[in-house]
Amino acid sequence: MKKAIDAGTVMVPCPVVLVSVGDKDKANIITLSWAANVCSKPPMIAIGVRPQRYSYELLRRTGDFVVNVPSRSLFKSAVICGTKSGRDIDKFKVCKLTPQPSLKVKSPGIAECPLNIECKIQQIVELGSHHLFIGEVQAATIDKEMLNAKGEPTASKMELFVFLPLTDEYWSLGDQMKS
Amino acid sequence: MKKAIDAGTVMVPCPVVLVSVGDKDKANIITLSWAANVCSKPPMIAIGVRPQRYSYELLRRTGDFVVNVPSRSLFKSAVICGTKSGRDIDKFKVCKLTPQPSLKVKSPGIAECPLNIECKIQQIVELGSHHLFIGEVQAATIDKEMLNAKGEPTASKMELFVFLPLTDEYWSLGDQMKS
Repeated sequence: MKKAIDAGTVMVPCPVVLVSVGDKDKANIITLSWAANVCSKPPMIAIGVRPQRYSYELLRRTGDFVVNVPSRSLFKSAVICGTKSGRDIDKFKVCKLTPQPSLKVKSPGIAECPLNIECKIQQIVELGSHHLFIGEVQAATIDKEMLNAKGEPTASKMELFVFLPLTDEYWSLGDQMKS
Repeated sequence: MKKAIDAGTVMVPCPVVLVSVGDKDKANIITLSWAANVCSKPPMIAIGVRPQRYSYELLRRTGDFVVNVPSRSLFKSAVICGTKSGRDIDKFKVCKLTPQPSLKVKSPGIAECPLNIECKIQQIVELGSHHLFIGEVQAATIDKEMLNAKGEPTASKMELFVFLPLTDEYWSLGDQMKS
């Protein structure tokens, strides 16, 4: 038996990513869950950002961004970077995060995040409260400590987590499922 | 220390949703991970679908779709609905899933999925291998067994899972994180 609930943004689970944008003189971090891989060839990521956010203008001006995937140890930083404004604080400094020069884009990545995905903005779709920035993946880097003996990315080492807007909760990943 | 990896669709973790589309005479299911909440007001979900997929034409023709969030018990059905084509099999029948009349859209939901989100297509953005269908949420229903004594959705009851394209693995959720 089903019950109707509010017709909101209830899709779960959602990723939690720290998007860094700007240049070496002025960069900001914004935590987002409205984010997804959306195209395989070319690889593209879409992120939804409110025009009121400080990062919005930086995204438009810079033309690129880095999607940084955090480990659970960065949970508090993720919350700070999602709730505080870059107009008021330097999030890199407050969260003790280190800008990492990118390979292909102007925006720096975040050194402490195990996975960094560099994107160049191809299109901006104005939806409503959020505008969708669609970026083409230019490069990706992973922390060598996330690799197994064969040099392959290893999910268990990454300690990923998700956001559930349905219940306003953050959950860690559990175990790999075998088919 | 970072290492460059293939600039692909490596963002993790990703949701796994069963998108149902069509009408009561002819409906199909397609499992997708290129999916996200992308706008809060109005609430919108975007899904990336290859034009070659059987569901692609159904989406265009029907003009709406339902995002059904599966529990782990539906993992095998999710894999079947992501790898088989609706041109060859009736996925509702093969997976023993039940079409559920929707409240606001033509496409039926999937009764066995604990959460169903009805969307009306507002925009289609042609990206590359995938086209992005942006749907506005019209209604949402949840299985009453997913509610706690207060009638609130309870994540632990939903037994959610995610897909990690970085390692081509499915992982269950673990525990709620406390800040």
